[in-house]
Amino acid sequence: MIETLNQLLDTAKNNQRITVAVAGGDDEAALGAIVDAGKMGIANGLLFGDSSTMEKRLQELNVVDTSYIKIKHESDLNTAIKRAVESVRLGNAQILLKGKVKTSQLLRGVLDAEFGLRTGHLLSDVFLFEYPARASGNKLVMITDGGVTLCPDLNQKLDIIQNAVQVAHALGNDLPKVALLSAVETVVPNLPSTHDAAIITKMNERGQIKGCVIDGPLALDNAVSPEAARIKGIDSEVAGQAEILVCPTIEAANMLAKGTTYFANLRLCHVIMGAAAPVLIPSRADTADAKLLSIALGKLIYQKVVV
Amino acid sequence: MIETLNQLLDTAKNNQRITVAVAGGDDEAALGAIVDAGKMGIANGLLFGDSSTMEKRLQELNVVDTSYIKIKHESDLNTAIKRAVESVRLGNAQILLKGKVKTSQLLRGVLDAEFGLRTGHLLSDVFLFEYPARASGNKLVMITDGGVTLCPDLNQKLDIIQNAVQVAHALGNDLPKVALLSAVETVVPNLPSTHDAAIITKMNERGQIKGCVIDGPLALDNAVSPEAARIKGIDSEVAGQAEILVCPTIEAANMLAKGTTYFANLRLCHVIMGAAAPVLIPSRADTADAKLLSIALGKLIYQKVVV
Repeated sequence: MIETLNQLLDTAKNNQRITVAVAGGDDEAALGAIVDAGKMGIANGLLFGDSSTMEKRLQELNVVDTSYIKIKHESDLNTAIKRAVESVRLGNAQILLKGKVKTSQLLRGVLDAEFGLRTGHLLSDVFLFEYPARASGNKLVMITDGGVTLCPDLNQKLDIIQNAVQVAHALGNDLPKVALLSAVETVVPNLPSTHDAAIITKMNERGQIKGCVIDGPLALDNAVSPEAARIKGIDSEVAGQAEILVCPTIEAANMLAKGTTYFANLRLCHVIMGAAAPVLIPSRADTADAKLLSIALGKLIYQKVVV
Repeated sequence: MIETLNQLLDTAKNNQRITVAVAGGDDEAALGAIVDAGKMGIANGLLFGDSSTMEKRLQELNVVDTSYIKIKHESDLNTAIKRAVESVRLGNAQILLKGKVKTSQLLRGVLDAEFGLRTGHLLSDVFLFEYPARASGNKLVMITDGGVTLCPDLNQKLDIIQNAVQVAHALGNDLPKVALLSAVETVVPNLPSTHDAAIITKMNERGQIKGCVIDGPLALDNAVSPEAARIKGIDSEVAGQAEILVCPTIEAANMLAKGTTYFANLRLCHVIMGAAAPVLIPSRADTADAKLLSIALGKLIYQKVVV
């Protein structure tokens, strides 16, 4: 089982290279990540976009060895997206990386019925960070969904959970502990997020959701802190030990995830799950480390889940 | 201007003692905070509840000098709440602290038309933490409302902002920077939190909300990180510099606030604003430090805002 982000990176380095298709390759951040992954033997890049701009950017990055990069010229952005997505669908690349295109455009391409990577499942962002849990050493914890669905309903939450559980399985965690977060750990009649949490917990108990242990509603403190869970007297396999934090809204997930970066300086990576292949949507403000780790995570998911 | 939590504590120590009324005084956590505040010369305690249990607990805490504690025997919990609230209303105490009573019961007492501390404004929780901003030293930042209103509407958000701005003013920050948080920094047609943010920003521009500078929607990264704001090209007085983070739902605020504690180990305190006096609702999982700082914050607010 992979328990730290360094282990994730080492695993990615030690396995055979995969190919990352980049939609809109003339993007400094995406190219930087491809160059890093290429140098480390993690991945090759297959770049779709304006070839002269891409070549210029590679020169600016002082890339000498370009043996791990293939450039496919596409002057039109929508065609670049289409061809990048298609290259993954046809197996010429294994994961898709957003370059200089809008996230909404890229996801439309991913969901295209003709050339896309649709599976019928909801797409969702899985944010993975390394949290120095006080008692038990570092621990990988996920937050979802801070990137795709604004206010998921019950059915959408089931897909969001399934997507994160797949990431946990790829990391070798066969029975991840899933906390359905709210502001409180009790069911409150006029707080809908606590109702969904109770319902989904029951579905897990009845065997309707497999491959994980679920409990909720939980507040963040009693989800991740064994002491807070003990003080509140919550008797649960998940409380204090949660590995997947499912938030009720995109705002809550997005803020909680960014809080681990901006207030706690924790390392992170993230991946969009639910398509036929991992999709990476790095933010411009993500560090180079986060982008490289995201490629490593996408590679692991491809090898463990998709194949 | 008070810029760190240590300065807050020093200020509270150097000013004349106030009296804290405790509803349900036989609570270990509340008593511990009163004893700490008493020893440091910050406050006296006026405890309402079962006298024999309270005396026993004080013995357990090895309190020798009880000169700063007054006990008022009330065997009935609702009467204890009523009398504690009333003592603040009558000026015998200046702030109200929750002891061994339910938060909902206490707030019902605070809002009681006959003996309560109603002002006509919404009650809201203001969470204050100290954030080691990279460039400019430590900084006090607030998160609101993670404690009272489940999903505030536009009018309720105005009260929530006003309550937090009062705390900033008490700290000597005359023009706090307020960020209206969402998952993104753009107005998204089907994401209502971004609409409210745009509307409230305009109200501030037009002078309808005074005493602060407001901008939104902002995502957490571009609200608190100057670099993230720069990368996203957001030209705003608030972006990257926010001092008050207003969240769209109770879940988002609660998780973001608890994340600063459980993921970043940052010091904190919090206070319920909007009543005629500061109301303190410490969580059982709060540290002794957080409880003491909350009393110090309540004292400052009483002295700067209420008087």
